Amino acid sequence: MAEHSRELSTEECLERLRSQSVGRIVFCADGAPQIYPVNFAVDSGSIVFRTSAYGLLAAGVHQSEVAFEVDELDLEHHHGWSVIAHGQGQMLDADETQDLTSLHMLEPWAAGSRTLHFRITPRQLTGRQFGRDR
Amino acid sequence: MAEHSRELSTEECLERLRSQSVGRIVFCADGAPQIYPVNFAVDSGSIVFRTSAYGLLAAGVHQSEVAFEVDELDLEHHHGWSVIAHGQGQMLDADETQDLTSLHMLEPWAAGSRTLHFRITPRQLTGRQFGRDR
Repeated sequence: MAEHSRELSTEECLERLRSQSVGRIVFCADGAPQIYPVNFAVDSGSIVFRTSAYGLLAAGVHQSEVAFEVDELDLEHHHGWSVIAHGQGQMLDADETQDLTSLHMLEPWAAGSRTLHFRITPRQLTGRQFGRDR
Repeated sequence: MAEHSRELSTEECLERLRSQSVGRIVFCADGAPQIYPVNFAVDSGSIVFRTSAYGLLAAGVHQSEVAFEVDELDLEHHHGWSVIAHGQGQMLDADETQDLTSLHMLEPWAAGSRTLHFRITPRQLTGRQFGRDR
């Protein structure tokens, strides 16, 4: 079986982004890369998630350059895809949070207060399908 | 069912790291966060992976501060874990590459030449189990 890899179209990227509810948010804090899994929703083409008011994630994302990644990787069959958004993180105020139609999807998995909502509007959205032909 | 979240011990982190063969490497390039899924192996407590000689990944990882993440996230049951290593990426020379006992595990999924091998020796290894009690 031949190995292959192809780029996904923007449409395919959005579709796969919407198919997931957990992704990984990445940012740089004092030059050091940080990564956090979060549950998220797609709201009018942007990525929204919530986190607690305290902690590195909230401090590192607001008005910062961030990346957001979702993937599905089939370890057994060496087959998978990955979609990556790049953009700026923005904390939402109370009114903007109320307006989120996807608010009910943002129940966090982990315990603790999760009171701040963030939005990432992708400036760049790229994806890749890779692995063996099947 | 109560939500809960707990830290994993170093031993648990290593065990879960060894249980996976695909992870995500994260670094900062000119202050912008970058993330790439790679297949990897654990070699004497460090993470090894290979990539092509050209491209942002090879350029961004050598002697740079990187993070490496693996996870298993059960979307349906809101249950999962994540392990994150922080350390410096180091390109291996030909002799060091030959000495890798795990070389056979590093066959890349995607097409293209993958000729450079890198090692991340974790300076910090943390993990978290989160989600609902089951």
